[in-house]
Amino acid sequence: MVVQHETFIAKYKDLLERELAASIHKLNAPQALKGAMLYSLTAGGKRIRPILLFAAIDAFGKNPEIGLRAACALEMVHTYSLIHDDLPSMDDDDLRRGKPTNHKIFGEALAILAGDGLLTYSFQLISEDEHIDDQLKIWLMKMLSICAGPEGMVGGQVADIQAENQELHLRELEYIHQHKTGRLLTYSVMAGAKIAGATEEELDLFEKYSQHLGLAFQISDDILDVIGDEKIIGKPIGSDRDKKKSTYPSLLSLEGARDHLAFHIQGAKETLSKTNLKTDLLEYLTDVVAGRDR
Amino acid sequence: MVVQHETFIAKYKDLLERELAASIHKLNAPQALKGAMLYSLTAGGKRIRPILLFAAIDAFGKNPEIGLRAACALEMVHTYSLIHDDLPSMDDDDLRRGKPTNHKIFGEALAILAGDGLLTYSFQLISEDEHIDDQLKIWLMKMLSICAGPEGMVGGQVADIQAENQELHLRELEYIHQHKTGRLLTYSVMAGAKIAGATEEELDLFEKYSQHLGLAFQISDDILDVIGDEKIIGKPIGSDRDKKKSTYPSLLSLEGARDHLAFHIQGAKETLSKTNLKTDLLEYLTDVVAGRDR
Repeated sequence: MVVQHETFIAKYKDLLERELAASIHKLNAPQALKGAMLYSLTAGGKRIRPILLFAAIDAFGKNPEIGLRAACALEMVHTYSLIHDDLPSMDDDDLRRGKPTNHKIFGEALAILAGDGLLTYSFQLISEDEHIDDQLKIWLMKMLSICAGPEGMVGGQVADIQAENQELHLRELEYIHQHKTGRLLTYSVMAGAKIAGATEEELDLFEKYSQHLGLAFQISDDILDVIGDEKIIGKPIGSDRDKKKSTYPSLLSLEGARDHLAFHIQGAKETLSKTNLKTDLLEYLTDVVAGRDR
Repeated sequence: MVVQHETFIAKYKDLLERELAASIHKLNAPQALKGAMLYSLTAGGKRIRPILLFAAIDAFGKNPEIGLRAACALEMVHTYSLIHDDLPSMDDDDLRRGKPTNHKIFGEALAILAGDGLLTYSFQLISEDEHIDDQLKIWLMKMLSICAGPEGMVGGQVADIQAENQELHLRELEYIHQHKTGRLLTYSVMAGAKIAGATEEELDLFEKYSQHLGLAFQISDDILDVIGDEKIIGKPIGSDRDKKKSTYPSLLSLEGARDHLAFHIQGAKETLSKTNLKTDLLEYLTDVVAGRDR
């Protein structure tokens, strides 16, 4: 089964990456802008969000390729958020996945505009998608704007900035993560299910699954920042501690964070089992996310 | 007639500003983010883009209020572009309409995120608009993303940055303006026409009108930078010259720029007259835009 899942992941990762590059190349825009957008879009990564979208479609027995444009839009929104997060006035990171961050190569102005361009273009991609009907397009654009905007990712990022150098309660930490990273993961899973024709009941289960998954993702990330390998995660170890950020290990101890992680992995898998769909790939991805080595 | 037009403008400006504030207040998002978004949204200005949208609907004899949500989305996209343009790594402006720029009040990180939030929220507003049908929503989101994204406003902004300290040809200058400011003006006019139920032929005329209007707008802006009153335009006179930017007066002389302005005003009005619609308000707005004192 693992081989089969890895084959699926490799196949759709490749498909996605070709489509991402093609989407940028065909733009009638200044070369400098296209270059900056493409640089971060092709900087690697596990493409976990698009893969979750494809896997959710696959769970319904539908062809994942019908979600290809939506998956590209999703990865563009994720990439824009990384470019802006890395800026000197935000996290001020020089490296991302072991490579210089966008502004280190192109300068701050172009990095900001490359992010703006990716965010805006993501809506164009969905609106021009010939494989999905009008109602579905509107659902996707509405959900994407909610999950990525002030009530979602952008709101979480603001809360995260305001929390720097502050000792947080677990509830506040979860608010940040549910918004900063959680909402876009929820979108990934729900968009795939919706594209595949999920019922409202199925959508609710996928949403609940994604919430467990999102927290597992973040707890795992916090643990990796304490115990991980700098070469594998592509950024310096201990950067959260250096920035005096509250994390799951800092609030719960490393052991407590691991218990919390196990709780959410179990919750995610139990929720999947209630869907009566072919969810073995999503179960596998849950383990990948929770123990990931990006 | 002038009184009637000014009454229309005042009425819909007021309606727009109430709806903009209400749209932000109802957001379930961190107060700091809402404050930063609201600050720039309520910093004044003529609201020329939403007013053009309302006026285009009015030309068809339809109720302009059906475009209220779309007008808010449009003003949010314009406002996000101003916030990002003013950043230290871009134009590095301390004042906008006589008030401190967003990052001067809230800091760079929050200013970037307020811009990101406004851009993303604009798509949410259109997707949730109960007054327009699905096909129209998709048209609006597609056109907005094209006009504001890499092939539109963001592309123009990149070209503008690359042109700094360079002597441009008129053709290059027009490319910048057609994209940086022109595309969103085109969207303003075409969105109004489309919302009102314009035919393809009418849309083409409105597009042509908007292109003349956009260039008139920019030429007038360049002229004002040379001869304007600092108190009225809210930014220092001669800032283009100080930044060694190519402008219409620098390429064509002040007299040549004025001739060019008159050419585009005439072209705009002639195009309007071909629509056989009630376009006296749009004609009036053309004069406002071309001689504006923002």
